[in-house]
Order: sequence, then C-alpha cells, then structure tokens
Amino acid sequence: MTQPGKPSQSRPNGGATPDTAPHLEVIPLGGMGEIGKNITAYRYGDEIMVVDGGLAFPDAHQMGVDLIIPRIDYLQQHAGLIKGWILTHGHEDHIGGLPYILPRLPRVPVYGAPLTLGLVREKLSEFGIKPGDVDLREVDLDANVKIGKSFQVQFVRMTHSIPDNAGYILTTPVGRIVHTGDFKLDEEPSDGRLSDLARIEQAGREGVLLLISDSTNAERPGRTVSEAEVARNLEDLISKCKGRVFMTTFASNVHRIGNVIKIAHRQGRRVVMEGRSMLKYAQVAQGLGLMELPEPLLANDEVGSLQDQQVLYVCTGSQGQPMSVLSRLAFGNHAKIALRRGDSVILSSNPIPGNEEAVNLVINRLYELGVDVYYPPAYRVHASGHGSQEELATVLNLARPKFFLPWHGEPRHQINHARLAQTLPRPPKRTLIARNGDVVRLGADEFRVTGTVPAGGVYVDGLGVGDVGDDVLLDRSSLSQEGVVIMTAVLHPTPHVEIVSRGFVRANRDLDAQIRRVALEAVEGGVREKKRLEDVRDDMYGAVRRFLRKVTGRNPVLIPMIVD
Amino acid sequence: MTQPGKPSQSRPNGGATPDTAPHLEVIPLGGMGEIGKNITAYRYGDEIMVVDGGLAFPDAHQMGVDLIIPRIDYLQQHAGLIKGWILTHGHEDHIGGLPYILPRLPRVPVYGAPLTLGLVREKLSEFGIKPGDVDLREVDLDANVKIGKSFQVQFVRMTHSIPDNAGYILTTPVGRIVHTGDFKLDEEPSDGRLSDLARIEQAGREGVLLLISDSTNAERPGRTVSEAEVARNLEDLISKCKGRVFMTTFASNVHRIGNVIKIAHRQGRRVVMEGRSMLKYAQVAQGLGLMELPEPLLANDEVGSLQDQQVLYVCTGSQGQPMSVLSRLAFGNHAKIALRRGDSVILSSNPIPGNEEAVNLVINRLYELGVDVYYPPAYRVHASGHGSQEELATVLNLARPKFFLPWHGEPRHQINHARLAQTLPRPPKRTLIARNGDVVRLGADEFRVTGTVPAGGVYVDGLGVGDVGDDVLLDRSSLSQEGVVIMTAVLHPTPHVEIVSRGFVRANRDLDAQIRRVALEAVEGGVREKKRLEDVRDDMYGAVRRFLRKVTGRNPVLIPMIVD
Repeated sequence: MTQPGKPSQSRPNGGATPDTAPHLEVIPLGGMGEIGKNITAYRYGDEIMVVDGGLAFPDAHQMGVDLIIPRIDYLQQHAGLIKGWILTHGHEDHIGGLPYILPRLPRVPVYGAPLTLGLVREKLSEFGIKPGDVDLREVDLDANVKIGKSFQVQFVRMTHSIPDNAGYILTTPVGRIVHTGDFKLDEEPSDGRLSDLARIEQAGREGVLLLISDSTNAERPGRTVSEAEVARNLEDLISKCKGRVFMTTFASNVHRIGNVIKIAHRQGRRVVMEGRSMLKYAQVAQGLGLMELPEPLLANDEVGSLQDQQVLYVCTGSQGQPMSVLSRLAFGNHAKIALRRGDSVILSSNPIPGNEEAVNLVINRLYELGVDVYYPPAYRVHASGHGSQEELATVLNLARPKFFLPWHGEPRHQINHARLAQTLPRPPKRTLIARNGDVVRLGADEFRVTGTVPAGGVYVDGLGVGDVGDDVLLDRSSLSQEGVVIMTAVLHPTPHVEIVSRGFVRANRDLDAQIRRVALEAVEGGVREKKRLEDVRDDMYGAVRRFLRKVTGRNPVLIPMIVD
Repeated sequence: MTQPGKPSQSRPNGGATPDTAPHLEVIPLGGMGEIGKNITAYRYGDEIMVVDGGLAFPDAHQMGVDLIIPRIDYLQQHAGLIKGWILTHGHEDHIGGLPYILPRLPRVPVYGAPLTLGLVREKLSEFGIKPGDVDLREVDLDANVKIGKSFQVQFVRMTHSIPDNAGYILTTPVGRIVHTGDFKLDEEPSDGRLSDLARIEQAGREGVLLLISDSTNAERPGRTVSEAEVARNLEDLISKCKGRVFMTTFASNVHRIGNVIKIAHRQGRRVVMEGRSMLKYAQVAQGLGLMELPEPLLANDEVGSLQDQQVLYVCTGSQGQPMSVLSRLAFGNHAKIALRRGDSVILSSNPIPGNEEAVNLVINRLYELGVDVYYPPAYRVHASGHGSQEELATVLNLARPKFFLPWHGEPRHQINHARLAQTLPRPPKRTLIARNGDVVRLGADEFRVTGTVPAGGVYVDGLGVGDVGDDVLLDRSSLSQEGVVIMTAVLHPTPHVEIVSRGFVRANRDLDAQIRRVALEAVEGGVREKKRLEDVRDDMYGAVRRFLRKVTGRNPVLIPMIVD
C-alpha cells in the first residue's frame, strides 16, 4: 500500500535540483508480468493519463470466479488528477474492465478508434450505464490528442487480430515514450493497412526516451504468420470440403471472419452466423463498414433448400466454452443443428492457456461424430495477433529507445524480450522488468522503480465485485478436494448428532453411523464434564477429524454446529 | 453392463459352423480411446490372458481424486479363466494399477522384463503386498512364453522412454496378433539396442491377422527426435552453463538420466540426485545395471567445497508438481538449497496435458529468481517416447496386418492413425476405432465389436477406492464454484436460524443477517401453517435460493437443516 515515493505534484513543473528533477511516473496497474487486464497510468505532476482498462479470465485455481478486473485504488485515491483516458483496441483484456472501472471515477474524455468505442458502448449499455455518463471521443488511428497540459498522444496504427488497433507515441515534458500496444507487423493485413512504422522510425530519429512493447511472443523465433496466409490456407481447405463447413474463431477477429465470408461467397456458399458474441461483434463491425457482406447472412432456418456444399457456418466455441455453439454441436445438444458424417469443422484458433482440456474434449467428440476436423498445427488456419522475435526486433531497432519496459507478458516473456533487446546493434541503456503496481520513475537520465501502489486483481463472481477474496477461494479449493461434512449436535433433551455431507463420499450409511458415534461420544463426554459449548464443539471437531483421517485418509472441510 | 455376446467358452475349440467359428476376443479394459490406465484382456474359449494394469491421472474436473484405476469387473467375473499376465514396461500407465488389481484376482504368472518387475516389486511392497502373493516371472526382452493352451507370446524389444520396453507377437488359434506396446523407432537409442523390427517384419511375412499399435503421436508428421540427439543437445547446453546446473525430467527416463550423469562426468561435474521418485527409479535401475555411475552420486551436504561449475543436480519436478524439488526451489521453500543468479535450470520434458499451468508457474518463478531457464521448444532437450507418423507407417508396412486396431490414444489419435494406415501401399482390410469395454471379436475373416463389458475408471481418493463416484464429483464441482451455505433452523422454544458458509463470500454480517431473516420468515410461516418438517425445510431452501440468486447472482450449494 506504499504511495509513490516523493510524488511530484507539489512542484508540477518542478525545478532542476537533482532529487526533484522533472520526472514522469509510469504505473502499470495491470498487464505487467501477466497477460491480461491491461491498464497503465502515467503521472506527471498533478496530471494523470490512463491507458486501457481490461479484464482477465480466472485460472484453474480461481474457482467460480467469472472474471478479474484490476485494482484501481491508486486511480480512486487520485481521481481528481485524471485528465483523460485512451484505449488502444477493443479486446476484452483492454476494454473488458471499463464497465466496472469508469463508473467509479470522474467523467473524463476517453479517446479511442471507432470499433473500439463501438464495442465499449455495447458493453456499457449491457451494464445499464447511460451514454451520457461516459465521455467517449472517437478518433482516427492517426489522431493527435492532448490530455491535460502534459500529455500529447499521437496514435499509431498497428496491425493486430482486431481492426482499429493502435499503439501511440506519448510526448511528455521529460521526453518521448513509444508504446506499441498489442501488435504484430503483418505485411499483408486483410484491410491492406500496414502498421505505421514510419512514425516509430521518425520518433526514433527524434529520440525515444522509453519504449513499452508487447512481449507476448518474445519466445517465438522468426515472424508471426500473416493474416493473408491464414486466409489463403482457409480458402484452400474450404475449397476441398464436400459437405457443410463449420468454422470457429475468436468473435473479435473481424478480419478473419470477413475473409471467410468472402471465401464462402467465392465458393458458392451462403454464410450462417451462430452464437451471441459472434453476432454482436459482426453487427458492430458491419455498422462501421469493417465487415463487408457480399450477400446477406442467412439464419439457420433459411438454409432450407441449399445443398450441403452451399453452406458455411461461422460459430462461437473456439475455446471449448461449454455453452458455445461448437460445444453444443460436438455434444449433440444444439437445438436446431446436428453434425453428421461429411461435415467439416475448422478451428481457426489455438486454445488460450488454460483452455487446452476443454478444446481437446470438443475435438475428440467431433472425431467421434465422424466429421472431419481441421485445426493447427497440422492445418495452418490460425495466426497469433502478436509479433515474434523478428518483429519485436524491428520495433526496437526503429525506436532506438534509451530505456525499455517489456510489457504485456509474464516474466518469461518480459525477460526474453529484454534479452532480445540486448542482442541488437543499439541496445537500450537500461531495461526494467516491472510488475503491476510498480511506480517507474522516468526522467531524462532516470529510469527506476521508486515505489509501489496497490495493484492486483478484484474477483467478479455473479453480481459480486470484490466480495470473493483469496480466503474464499482457499475454502472453495478445500471443498473441491474432499467435500464438506456438517455435524450438528443437538444437546437437549438428550444429545444426538446429525451428519450431512456433500462431495465427500458416495452415500454410506455405515460411515455416517460411525461418524455420528464418534461425534456423539465427544459431545456426551463434554456435556458430562460440563464444558463450555465452544469446547464441546471443538472436541467433536477434533474427534471426527482424527477419525476420518485414520479411516478414510481424507480431510474434508468439517463444520461442527452445536444446538443448545 | 452387457456381457459379451455369445461368449465362446461353451465350445472352447469350437467347430466350424459360421456363428461358432473359432474366434478370439480382444477386450480393452483401459487405454483405448484415452491415454492412460492401459489394460487389455484376450479371451479364447475358457482362457484369458491379460496385458498390463495401469493407472490414469485425474483431469481438472475430477477434483480431489488422487488417481484412477481401470474397472476390472470383467476379470473378476471370469477370474477362474485367467491363465497369465504380461507386462510391456514399467510406466505408471501400464503398471501403476497393479497393486489395486492383482490382489483382487487369483495368483497367476505375471511375465515382465527385469526393470518392469523391479518397479512392480517396489510398488507392491509399498502397498504391503507380500512377494509370495504375486507370481512375478522375469523374462528377457526376446522371451517366448506360453500362457494357457491358447496363447503363445513372443516379446519384441521396442525403444521407448524407459528401458526394458516391449511389444509382443501373440500367436493364437485364430492367427497372429502384433501389439507394438508403447514405442518409438529410435535409431540411436542410448543403450544401442534398436527396436526388433526384424521380428515384426517376419511376422508380416508369415501373416499378421491384427495389428494393435500406439497412436499417441499419430497427428505428428515425420519422426520423433532420437534420445541421442537429446543427449547431444543437453551436452552442448550444459557445457555452456557457468554455474550450478539443475536438470529435471521424468524419473522413469532412466536412459536420459544416465546420459546426463555421463555428460556431467565428462564436464567435471559431480551429480546430486534430489527427489524421492528420482532416487527410487535410479536405485532400481542401478541394481539392474541399467544406469552406470562413473562416480558415486553425492548427497547435497557433500557438495561443500565444490565450485558451482562442478555440480549438477538431477531433480524431480518436470510437471510442476507442488511438492517436487524443482517447485520448492522455484518458490524458495526448499529446506537446503536456494537458487541464485548464475544457476541454470533445464526442463528436459514437456508438460503432460493438464500440467501446462503448473509448469508455466514454475518457469515464471525461475525467471523471477534470475536463473537461466532452458526448456523446449526453444531448446531441444526433450523427445517424446512415442513414434510419429513415419514410424507408425514403418510398423504398419512391416506388419501388413489384415485388421488394425489403433490403440493408446484418444479418438483424435486413433482416427488419424487409421487414416494414416489407409494412405499406405497395403492398407488394412478393416480398421476399428474401439473404446474401453468393447468386445472385439477376431477370427480369420471376422473383426467386429460384438458387445461390451463394464469398463471405465474407479477413483482412488485417500484410502478410498471406488467410494467417490461421478455424483460426488458433481457435488465437489458445485462446491468449488460457489461454496456452501448451511442454514440450521431450530424450532423450539421459538424458531431461530443459524447461517454458516464456506467458500461463498467474504464474511459479511449484513448478508448473513438478511439470509437469516429470509430463512426465518419461511420457517415461521411454515410453523404457523403447521406444515410438515420436510415442507418447512423445503420452504426455507426455496426462499433462500431465490433470495441469493436475486441479490448475489449466485447458486451456492444450500444445505437446509431443521432441528425440531
């Protein structure tokens, strides 16, 4: 809970004495040392600018948690200093936290490209947040906006797996910062609009104090496959399919889906789109002219007289999500569509870490149904949205930063990114491996962590935000391992004990009777000795704990209750 | 629970009428349609022969389960017919179930190679099973044993990731069966002993009725990397390490560990071995002359005066297991050893599906400690023990079977293996994609599933075998998602309600009070209307369920109790 060391707001345009030399603070509140829930604050004097506001998905140990949003204590504590917000793109890990974050902070201008803001609007309206409550300001991908007195933001178009994706060049009183945002350097992007490397190169010539760059694929050699190559491979594959084709990918991959719609048209297939999130993204993208439809989409019940080789379904389920269209098809419980031999299913995606098992289950079920299943790596029908080592090196070489902050990655990615930078002809003078909450102080000759602010995740579970903490998750973990046994001792008129369990063992009257006897003995002993109720309860707990450990080798969660 | 259709025991050497033509039954009880818990029964007339008896590890949804053993109802029901057992190799998924299986069946000869039986003996003694209770018979890897009157078993040496690994050629009254066992065709095995393809080729010339072959890597093109190449890459990598080296791999990979010990010796490093399972395998292997030690292993406290570059640790933890040596090193809670900058850690392994997250966590922690971490694919320091498509094709081409049963794989692996077979010059006449419990009837011209027997998994949890079923796991899953809320209503003298919860939300007195009020209203209403106790309980349950859903958006496990 440390506050930033020597915050500079007392002397916003402070003098030149060494320890109060003008400096900026870069404060990653999410997305640093992890992949997910990106949010970064910049502070100069009494002005704060914020970038993105994403969410993360829980890992296997965060049981029952729906999603995780970043802690924003720092922003709330300095709410009055926030001058504006910029959004780099519309992925959940960059905008998914906004419905939780924005309402808790003052209304400030939020700048973003059309698709990004379109998706934010959808999201806010789902949460019942009125358009007027948030000051969304649409900008082009080469816009230049001023935030407060200290921050000049030049958006920079970068290719990624969603349209309208941007990095930015931030001009501040201490110097120039280049933040790549999420990016790859796709040389054949679907919309023909390349990453704007000229701006980064120009910044490099003019001097870049700090580069903040995407580390996701820092361990991958070479270049990331182009979206155009994915499209060619999909076209080739689909042209060989004889029956119906079902294709799934990330709903946000608007270009990929647009390409598949074009491919279908060229091959005489009408497209049916299935799945709520797929339809939502498509609707927003179409409204903005980002997804062209050579023919209208069909609803499933309009397919009627078409032959199998005249239909292509685009559907949700690339991550094996249980309620998605593809999962329901694989498990044979879709209300309207049944897969059959002769159908082809294309997974134009890779499982996100944590989803491997779910995706594998779906793939196996598809094989069992006798359909033809196509997925990477055997079929090159997916490409990452993040650049590999050669692309990362290109950006480092163009920006030629004095300081370097590898971002958007776990420590393994950050550190490999840092090492890559050291192999280049003009390595950065200094690289920091930062974590969420670090206060990175940046000056002309200064680049170090001077303190920390609260950071981490807030769990969202059902309607609750933050009412599930690690203590609750620890309980859930214990419950999941051995279940729960509840012992209720009623003392009057004569002591007796009731046993109820869930998730412990299969209904077992003998064992229940034994537990009851062990518990009752402890209770009767305590009553005889006129012990206090708490002590009787503890005796019962201890006796049953020992008994179960000995007889079953297990440690269920034990809940002893005494009714006097 | 179907019994095999028309079991042939009534006419063991049955006549030639079409429906009673002599035939064999191949009954996979585990390992078919899955990777894990391999066990296969062959039945001819009134004789049964069994192969292997493995275990499987639970997936993420089988919460709290320690391991899974195959159901052996079929073997128990026909226990008197079992004439003998053979073991292909010493991996857990082939022998790990034996301590549970063998004691429940009559004592019959169990044939296996020295290392395999050495590991079985260790295992049985851990379970307190006396050596005399099991009839273990050590055989060479080219042994020929007769089981009952009907089964002639010719072991066939095959290379794999553990020494003393075998497939076998089974000569039966209906024809010849080739079962590869787990295999790769390593052209440079560590002990110089190649797979005995000559025998398979000879069987192919003499006529193979059925091939049962390992499908694990049927989706991988090309050949699996040789163990010799892994050793070369390890040697190259270790020679460049300046400080201490910590290397982990599967404890059963005796050859790999032996190679690393030799590499260490050549490079002037003494070897310390850490971790119980690592030491156990090494001890058994050394006793059999399968792991040579150029110098004695050191204990950690003997390292004393050695310099960092004179030490190499071989340790457990390649799968991110929380209590393993590598995990304790990564999380800084090993009692005697602390990693430091300058150390190198080599993960000579890949995560088994399901372990990705745990391994990733360990790798990230190692990076954070500042040690150098090496692992695939960036460093080619691991090779699978299973052959890829070219190797699978080689075996199919040599065996030239009439019928084909792709085994040791999930449906995706089995089906890709089947497709591979169809692309070869002499494809099998018929391929079956079988599942556990299928009764595959095999005759000179017959190859089909004629029925099923009980099969599947029995969960082992603590000391309990089979007392946790899918119903219990479903409860555990519910508990893990939302926790449990227990409402105890005491009716006399005046009704009141106690609320206890675990894993639901952070302690929240307001919410508890509200739940109590809602529950109490329902109870008081029921009491006023003189409802039956069960109905009062159901009312309380329903009222609280609705209340929680509305207020929290959640569905914890609710346990209502009434004390009259």
